[in-house]
Amino acid sequence: MDVGDPLGMHRVLPEADAAQPLPLPQRATRLDNDPEKVFESEIVVDVETLNIDAASFRQMDDEAKGELAGIGRIVMRTVEQRGKQHNPVTGSGGMLLGKVRRVGALVRERGVAPGDRVATLASLSLTPLKLERVVEVRPASAQVDVVGTAVIFATAPFAKMPKDLPERLALAALDVAGAAPQVARLAKPGQTVVVLGAGGKSGLLCCVEARKRVGRQGKVIGLESYAPFAQDLLAFGICDAVIEHDARDAVGVRDRIAEVTQEECADLTISCVNVPGCEMAAICATKDRGKVYFFAMSTSFTACALGAEGIGADVDLYIGNGYAEGHADHTLELLRSDNRLRSLFDKRYG
Amino acid sequence: MDVGDPLGMHRVLPEADAAQPLPLPQRATRLDNDPEKVFESEIVVDVETLNIDAASFRQMDDEAKGELAGIGRIVMRTVEQRGKQHNPVTGSGGMLLGKVRRVGALVRERGVAPGDRVATLASLSLTPLKLERVVEVRPASAQVDVVGTAVIFATAPFAKMPKDLPERLALAALDVAGAAPQVARLAKPGQTVVVLGAGGKSGLLCCVEARKRVGRQGKVIGLESYAPFAQDLLAFGICDAVIEHDARDAVGVRDRIAEVTQEECADLTISCVNVPGCEMAAICATKDRGKVYFFAMSTSFTACALGAEGIGADVDLYIGNGYAEGHADHTLELLRSDNRLRSLFDKRYG
Repeated sequence: MDVGDPLGMHRVLPEADAAQPLPLPQRATRLDNDPEKVFESEIVVDVETLNIDAASFRQMDDEAKGELAGIGRIVMRTVEQRGKQHNPVTGSGGMLLGKVRRVGALVRERGVAPGDRVATLASLSLTPLKLERVVEVRPASAQVDVVGTAVIFATAPFAKMPKDLPERLALAALDVAGAAPQVARLAKPGQTVVVLGAGGKSGLLCCVEARKRVGRQGKVIGLESYAPFAQDLLAFGICDAVIEHDARDAVGVRDRIAEVTQEECADLTISCVNVPGCEMAAICATKDRGKVYFFAMSTSFTACALGAEGIGADVDLYIGNGYAEGHADHTLELLRSDNRLRSLFDKRYG
Repeated sequence: MDVGDPLGMHRVLPEADAAQPLPLPQRATRLDNDPEKVFESEIVVDVETLNIDAASFRQMDDEAKGELAGIGRIVMRTVEQRGKQHNPVTGSGGMLLGKVRRVGALVRERGVAPGDRVATLASLSLTPLKLERVVEVRPASAQVDVVGTAVIFATAPFAKMPKDLPERLALAALDVAGAAPQVARLAKPGQTVVVLGAGGKSGLLCCVEARKRVGRQGKVIGLESYAPFAQDLLAFGICDAVIEHDARDAVGVRDRIAEVTQEECADLTISCVNVPGCEMAAICATKDRGKVYFFAMSTSFTACALGAEGIGADVDLYIGNGYAEGHADHTLELLRSDNRLRSLFDKRYG
């Protein structure tokens, strides 16, 4: 019985410079995508659809000059060369949807059986993939329907697709599944929580979760720069205050937050603004010994570290981890349990 | 009485695009460096020495083709144009040493009086500075002796220079003053702490602090790739295990740490390795629900966020904050209280 490595090292092919230690699958140039090789720590999936990362899809669209068949050929070529849909130009991947074909003996406890529909929550950049053919390229949703086989390593997160929610809605929520569970861990009863980018997808989930955690004695303050989203948030009624303001304006944000908190500022600030330069607003909105959680991939490590130091802000700074145990179930449950959130998601992403 | 803003906004001069909100002092193009303007939230310092950031000094050295007077002229020009020693090419600053001239009425509780020698711990990139002249450029230490005046804002950290420690030793320790206090907060009795880059300056401080916190039941494991530093660490005798290994090799590090912890891995991993590509080693060395603290400025936010997600690592990821309340005293006290640490620092940095 071949067990394989939980991180998937058994599928990493040697690099050109064989003197270097083997990289993890995500950093590897090529993965062994042979689905006929059986490892008992793997789940094997018949792939239906690749959800391509937005930046990657745009690059392929440019390269193919908008010709859909050309995009399909680029996908086939990348997977042929690398054993994974890991765009060599953008470095990004995406996720996939498919049906479980086989569950290894060592990963039965992961809770899926052959025939179950699943979505991977680890990037395509580390997922072994073999393609027979491309069926259809759908540019509106950056999706590519394919016939192929993928492998999910023992440590790679995935979600069973729920039967009671429309697929597009579920995928939209799963895309930011890590956000709400982290808020659930950090927000305590009676605290003041500030969410930057509160009207967007992850921001809304964070607001709903924070509201549950801080209770009636606590405060949830949502900051949003995009007027229609700020309107939605206000109509939603989940926040104690909705502030329409640009999160790049650190001093303006500090002043507005100080104003609505009687100079106390936040115990916990969550940044969901996917725009560079919002680090200092999040830090300035937070009181001493408070926590600042950055979910946005546009966050600069050095801007946070040096920025907090420069103003003597004694706060804990967190890099948003997209994974938390049970995060998919947690987030889907949030969507099911709050009708206003559900209808807002339906309207926007359904 | 003019109070000024604790973040120093009162010294930020308007940007070319006046429609934009005023940036914080660090992002500002120009600061008002007039020391004759009195604000009661400021400390005014007679500057003796600028400790220029290494990258900045190298750039000026190149530009001046190694001519020391040329470096001096570049410093004078930058400060003249920007009101701060904020290298416009590298974007970096440094710190300064000087003697307190005046303490504003609102910052008396900061614990210094006129005549005290201080070192700023906020970057020169946000410190208003006016120079009369450059006295000497000292390339060996990237220092520039000057006659001039600087302003310390109410939120900007600084340290009183200790009288019982040699200046170079104190400066070396103050440079990484944030490290040990954060370890003191996070490491608990009985835990296993892994330090990557354990033989370097901040790594040593983290090991000593971790040892105090985890106690005899706990474990401190130091990983170091540079053989002489690994030797020093071994001779120091503060770690339960010293592993000589390259921190860019995530799987190798995981295996070595698993081996010395009976597959348990770390409750807390501190990364002090200032080399890109060490994120996954730190994450792989840590157990589920453990904490990973990144002090190195070479850390990539996205490598941490996406890397942890990709392998389903449910760990808390921290951006190292260079500031913590009382961090300078804490770190100097550590140096005073441990003779072996003190003599190692003497040998290397004294």
